[in-house]
Amino acid sequence: MRVSQTNSRTNLAGDLLLHLGGSGDGPLHERVKRALRAAIRDGRIEVGTALPPSRQLAADLGCSRWAVTEAYGQLVAEGYLEARTGSATRVRWSNAADADERRPAAGQTPLPRFDLAPGLPDLRAFPRRRWADAVRAQVTTAEFTEFGYPPPGGHPRLRRLLAEYLGRSRGVVAGPQDVTVCTSVTDGVRRVCQTLRAQGITAVGCEEPGWTRLREVISAAGLRAVPIPTDDGGVHVEDLAAQADLRAVLTTPAHQFPLGSVLVPERRAALLHWARRVDGVVLEDDYDAEFRYDRRPVAALQGMDPSRVVLFKSLSKVVSPALGIGWIVAPPRWTALLHETDQTATQPPTLDQLAFAALLESGAYDRHLRACRHRYRDRRDALVRSLADQLPDAPVSGIAAGLHLILRLPVTVNTEAVVRAAADRSLRVADLTAYHATDARAEHGLVLGYGNLADSAVEEAVGLLRAAIEESR
Amino acid sequence: MRVSQTNSRTNLAGDLLLHLGGSGDGPLHERVKRALRAAIRDGRIEVGTALPPSRQLAADLGCSRWAVTEAYGQLVAEGYLEARTGSATRVRWSNAADADERRPAAGQTPLPRFDLAPGLPDLRAFPRRRWADAVRAQVTTAEFTEFGYPPPGGHPRLRRLLAEYLGRSRGVVAGPQDVTVCTSVTDGVRRVCQTLRAQGITAVGCEEPGWTRLREVISAAGLRAVPIPTDDGGVHVEDLAAQADLRAVLTTPAHQFPLGSVLVPERRAALLHWARRVDGVVLEDDYDAEFRYDRRPVAALQGMDPSRVVLFKSLSKVVSPALGIGWIVAPPRWTALLHETDQTATQPPTLDQLAFAALLESGAYDRHLRACRHRYRDRRDALVRSLADQLPDAPVSGIAAGLHLILRLPVTVNTEAVVRAAADRSLRVADLTAYHATDARAEHGLVLGYGNLADSAVEEAVGLLRAAIEESR
Repeated sequence: MRVSQTNSRTNLAGDLLLHLGGSGDGPLHERVKRALRAAIRDGRIEVGTALPPSRQLAADLGCSRWAVTEAYGQLVAEGYLEARTGSATRVRWSNAADADERRPAAGQTPLPRFDLAPGLPDLRAFPRRRWADAVRAQVTTAEFTEFGYPPPGGHPRLRRLLAEYLGRSRGVVAGPQDVTVCTSVTDGVRRVCQTLRAQGITAVGCEEPGWTRLREVISAAGLRAVPIPTDDGGVHVEDLAAQADLRAVLTTPAHQFPLGSVLVPERRAALLHWARRVDGVVLEDDYDAEFRYDRRPVAALQGMDPSRVVLFKSLSKVVSPALGIGWIVAPPRWTALLHETDQTATQPPTLDQLAFAALLESGAYDRHLRACRHRYRDRRDALVRSLADQLPDAPVSGIAAGLHLILRLPVTVNTEAVVRAAADRSLRVADLTAYHATDARAEHGLVLGYGNLADSAVEEAVGLLRAAIEESR
Repeated sequence: MRVSQTNSRTNLAGDLLLHLGGSGDGPLHERVKRALRAAIRDGRIEVGTALPPSRQLAADLGCSRWAVTEAYGQLVAEGYLEARTGSATRVRWSNAADADERRPAAGQTPLPRFDLAPGLPDLRAFPRRRWADAVRAQVTTAEFTEFGYPPPGGHPRLRRLLAEYLGRSRGVVAGPQDVTVCTSVTDGVRRVCQTLRAQGITAVGCEEPGWTRLREVISAAGLRAVPIPTDDGGVHVEDLAAQADLRAVLTTPAHQFPLGSVLVPERRAALLHWARRVDGVVLEDDYDAEFRYDRRPVAALQGMDPSRVVLFKSLSKVVSPALGIGWIVAPPRWTALLHETDQTATQPPTLDQLAFAALLESGAYDRHLRACRHRYRDRRDALVRSLADQLPDAPVSGIAAGLHLILRLPVTVNTEAVVRAAADRSLRVADLTAYHATDARAEHGLVLGYGNLADSAVEEAVGLLRAAIEESR
C-alpha cells in the first residue's frame, strides 16, 4: 500500500494499524514510531508526504495524542521526518540504514540550546568532586566481600541512612528494613506493579494529567491505568472512590506532576480513608518534594499511614539520572513480597550505593540539596519575572516548588504548534495536553522545566518562546 | 493443620502445596521457601520436626530437587531450620519477626570460611585503585550533559570499545551498534526473552545440567525452559533438533556450566545449521571464556554466524558482580527489537560505564584479565593436586578453564549429605545434581569453584572436604 498526499489521512492510519502490534510489543508511542518508520523505510509513505496533525492521527488510531507527538518527535530526531513551523510534519527520507544503530556519540547528539522540558535537575551542578572522593573512599576501605553480589533490597548501610534521612526530611516513618533500594522511580513502580498483580490487583488509578512514562510502566506490567481527574487541589478522591474495582492509586501529593499543585489536607485524609476502606494501597511518587520555595515542604503522605502507602523516590530529579539510584519505602508485607517476587532485580552497583550512603552520612547530600534549593528558587523567580514581562497574557500556575511551572495560554494558541515552533528555535518545551491520557477536559498550556536551564539563558529562552507563541496564534 | 513428626512427609507436602501459589508469585524455590517459612511461623510445623529429605519432598511437590535444597538452605541461613550432619534438617524456631527484614549489615553476614560455591571471581583482586582513578578521571572530564539520562543501549563510547575488545579477544564480529549494555547476564537474558516472546517464540532449550538461575529467568519471562541433554562434548544438537517446536537455545559453548566441557567443533557447526534451518536463535552465555589455561580460548560461536547468535557476558565472573555491568551482542534486527521492547530498561550508571570504557581503552582491563588468568591457573593446579593427593578415588573433570571444576564421587557417597557436612565445617560446595532440571540421568559429583578461594586456603579446604565426604559415605 502506498500513501499519496491526497488521501494520506485514512490510508496512513489504516497502514499503521496493520503494523502496530499488540501491547506485548512495547509502549504505544514506540509501536507507533516503529510502524511509522517501517512505512517510511519500505517506501509505503513517500518522501515529502505531509503527515496528519497528531490530534487527528491519535483519534484515527484510537490512542493518546502524546503517543503520536512522541513518535513524531523521535522520528524527527532520527531524520525520518522534518517539522517546519507553520506547516505539517513531512517525511524526509534519511539514507541511514537504521538511525537507532548509528546513534552519534553523546557529545554529538544534537541537543536543543535551551532545554525547558521538565524532568532534569541542574546537570551543571553535579557534585563532581564530592562524588569522586566518596567513590575513592569507599573503594579503598570496603571489605573485599563487598565486591560480591549486592545484597537484595540494597546495601544495609544505605537502607539505614535513607530511613534516617527520610524521617528527618520528609516525615517518613520507616526503619531500614522498610527501605528497598532500586534504580529509579520507573524501576520501583514496575517492581511494585508486578507485586500488585501477583496479589490480584488489576488496575491502578493515575492522576489525569500525570506522568506518561509511569502510566506506560503500569500498562506494561499488565495492569490497567485508570485516569482520575486531578485539579489544583490534587487528585479527586471522590472520583477515585467511585471506581468500584480500584484498590491502588499512583499520586504525587507533595507537588502534582504536571499541574504543580499540592494535595489539599482534606483530600490527603480522604485518600487514606479510601485506602483503608478498600484494603488498598497508595503509591506516592515523591519525585521533587525537597524543593519548595515558599514554605517547608509538605511531609510525605507515607508518614500518616505507613501501612497503606508505598513511597517512591530517586536521585534523578535531585542530583542526576545518570547515577541510577532510587528507593521504595513500603509496609513490611509489601517489602517482603517485593524481595520475593524478583530476586534477580538489578541493584545499583555496590560502590555507588556506598558512595551515596557516605554523602548522606557526612551531611554533604543535605548541603547539596540546600544549595540547589536556593539556586532553583532564584531561577524560578527570574523565569516568572521574565514571563510576566514578555508574556503578560499568559498566567503562570503551580506552587513555588520543584523544577517546573505551568504557563497557561489562551485557547486560541495551538500549543502543539508552539512546541514545534520552539523546536525550530532550538528551544525545547512540553505541551501540557501531552500529559493527558484522554483529551477530555485537557488543560491548555505549556510545561516549562527550569532545572537544567542556565541562569544566563532565562531571558533569551523566554524571548524565543514568545516568538514561537506569536507565530502559533 | 499441624504436622507431627510421625506423618510429616505427606502432611507437609500437602500443606506446602496449599500455600505454594502460582508461577506469578516468583521462582519456585522462593515459593517453596515462603510456604515453608509461613508454615513454621504460623506454628503448623513444630520446632524439632524433621523435614523429609529434599529428594523426597521434591517428588511430593512435583518440583526439582534444587528448588527444595535452595529453600532449605535459605531457611537455614535465616535461622528457621537447622542442618546437622548425619541427621535430617529440622525446624529451629527463630524469634525473629522476619529474618528478611533484619538482614544483618554486610560485614556481619555469616560467610563460610571457605567458599567453593561456583560463580564468583577473586574478590580480593578487585582493581580498587584503577577503578577509583578511572571514576575520578571520568567524573572530572565528562561533559555536563553526561549527567542526564544514560542513552538507551549503553554509552556509545563503551559500545565502541566493547565491540573492539570482543573482536580481538573473542572473535566476535560486531560493530558498536550491535552491542547493548545491560546490567548482568541475568538481565540480558531476561530482556532478550521478553523480545523472543513478543516475536512468538514460546520455548528455549536449556543445557541439562545448566545454570539454574537462567532457567528461572526464562520461565519468569513466560517461556518454557526445555532441558536438552548435555555431556562432555557440550549440548546434544540432535536432541535439540528433535524438539519440533524449538527455535531458541541457551548454551555455554566455550565452557559448559557446570560440566566444564567445550562444545565440540562438529556440534558447533550443527548448532548453527539447526538455527538456520528453524529460523532460530542461539543464546550464547560466554560467562568465563577468557579463562582458559591449556590453550587459547575457543572463539565465540557468535563470530561464526553473527546473524543467528546473541552473545551475553558480564563483569560478574571476571571482575566483580558488584559493578553491575554486562552486555549483549545481537544481530541488528534483535538489537532494534531489544531497544524498542523496553525503553525503560535500567542502564548501568553513566560514570561506571565510562570508567569501564576507560579501563578497556587504556589496556588496564586486558592486564587485569591476564593477571587473573595466571592466578586462577596456579590456583586450579594447586586444587587439582591437593584433590588428587587427599581424594585419590574422586576424579576431576572439566577442561583447564574458568573458575570451577567437577569432582566426581562414587555413587555410594550422598552428595547432598556432603554439602551439609561441609557447611557444618564452614565450607561451601555445590551439589552437581542441583543444576539438573530433572533427576533423570543426573550426574553425580560436586561443583567446586576456586575463583574466590584464597591460595593459602586450598589445602585446608580440601582436608575439610575429605572429612565431609568420609562422613557421608
